[in-house]
Amino acid sequence: MSVIGKVYLIGAGPGAADLITVRGAKLLAQADVVLHDALVEPELLELCPQAKLIAVGKRCGKLSTSQRFINKRLVDATYQYATVVRLKGGDPMLFGRADEELAALEDAGIAYEIVPGITAAQAGAASLGHSLTLRGVARSIAFVTHAKAKDDQTNQESLLTQPSADTLVYYMARAHAVEIAQNLIKAGRKGSTPVHLLESITTSRERTWSITLDELADQSNSTESNRNDWQTSDQPLLVLIGDALAQRAGREINNGAQDRLILTNRRRSA
Amino acid sequence: MSVIGKVYLIGAGPGAADLITVRGAKLLAQADVVLHDALVEPELLELCPQAKLIAVGKRCGKLSTSQRFINKRLVDATYQYATVVRLKGGDPMLFGRADEELAALEDAGIAYEIVPGITAAQAGAASLGHSLTLRGVARSIAFVTHAKAKDDQTNQESLLTQPSADTLVYYMARAHAVEIAQNLIKAGRKGSTPVHLLESITTSRERTWSITLDELADQSNSTESNRNDWQTSDQPLLVLIGDALAQRAGREINNGAQDRLILTNRRRSA
Repeated sequence: MSVIGKVYLIGAGPGAADLITVRGAKLLAQADVVLHDALVEPELLELCPQAKLIAVGKRCGKLSTSQRFINKRLVDATYQYATVVRLKGGDPMLFGRADEELAALEDAGIAYEIVPGITAAQAGAASLGHSLTLRGVARSIAFVTHAKAKDDQTNQESLLTQPSADTLVYYMARAHAVEIAQNLIKAGRKGSTPVHLLESITTSRERTWSITLDELADQSNSTESNRNDWQTSDQPLLVLIGDALAQRAGREINNGAQDRLILTNRRRSA
Repeated sequence: MSVIGKVYLIGAGPGAADLITVRGAKLLAQADVVLHDALVEPELLELCPQAKLIAVGKRCGKLSTSQRFINKRLVDATYQYATVVRLKGGDPMLFGRADEELAALEDAGIAYEIVPGITAAQAGAASLGHSLTLRGVARSIAFVTHAKAKDDQTNQESLLTQPSADTLVYYMARAHAVEIAQNLIKAGRKGSTPVHLLESITTSRERTWSITLDELADQSNSTESNRNDWQTSDQPLLVLIGDALAQRAGREINNGAQDRLILTNRRRSA
């Protein structure tokens, strides 16, 4: 058998089917086969009704296809199909283990193209109506994940105060959110720093909690029975922290995100 | 006069017209008026042939419309047009001064929606074929800009070693690139750390230079006549730094980006 296919590694974006790029949508419509993450929204797969669908890997903390097996399926698909799409949630080059899949393709002599996707932090900022950077307040932003593969040798401790940037966004952060807040306060961040917790961004299940760093740090002693609802979901949680994310004075008109903020603020004070 | 319009703040993405989101493209096709950054590629504006086009603001280091005037034009447009698009290069919530425009809309009682866009760092990573994060190597990434508005009070000095993250991406970095490299080496980064300089990403004018942190730091003494070509352009320069961006062993097959890398490596050693 010889390679007949080319692989398109495409970012599906944050969730909503129309937040994929035009290029990504066009390639999906031409795909012979689509290997997609389990986390990719079903609406995205409606963009490729003609394609054979193969669900692979990656569901936050759950049993998932091993990376090695994904790499093999991807390579194998190019022996059988001309247009092979590997559809990954968010942006393939951020927390996506794309390098491992690209290395496997390179080893096998298979051509590929990469199409970027909107990452959750960008969609979260749009939903909240807060810029991630703010003139005079925040000129740097860091994305970080504490989720750790078994064979990852990076130092977990150092990550709790790293990275340093004006705005911080933590991916897949549910398990570490309280510890992160406590460590940031120890490291000198103000307790009043705004924090937004988001899940299922841009989908009909989107939920947002807007609190402060102090409030997040205090939730460590929550027992099973009085846990906040953000602690009980099994969806990936995105945590945005920083002064750029403070409510603007006099903010009244909005696009729906504000309704949610008021709602969650009310819920908190109730 | 009363407000009849709604504003859509849309990220145009990194350059190529088909790297805008599907939602962004659809809204452009429905727009009555489009207020766009001067840096937005002309191809993007072909997505809205029906719309009145107004070029506003922002051209790297050049005379540009003041932010206050942009805010006013945006508000004024809603008195005259139903669907008002504010089209910004990249992602509107990253280095886009979106907050100031949103505040003006809120003050005037105007509804808005935000559509995220692919930011240059994401397109750069896709073009280079390097993931911005890498298992066991890089679990955090920071985006930062040193470009500074006149009335910005943030401390310029602290920015030269901040932020700390495994992978670092500097926007609009031409003027500070050498100084950044020197400071990172002083702060303990290895001189062999890979550095990629990119401009006009995803356009026909895209250029890439792949060097090391040491090599970048050494370019400080370049006189006017022997400057490297990356120093002479007037396009915004993106600088990516980090071990995650190292060439993969045995990398042979590629999507074009590799050709450019080889080319620029040859050019450097010639």
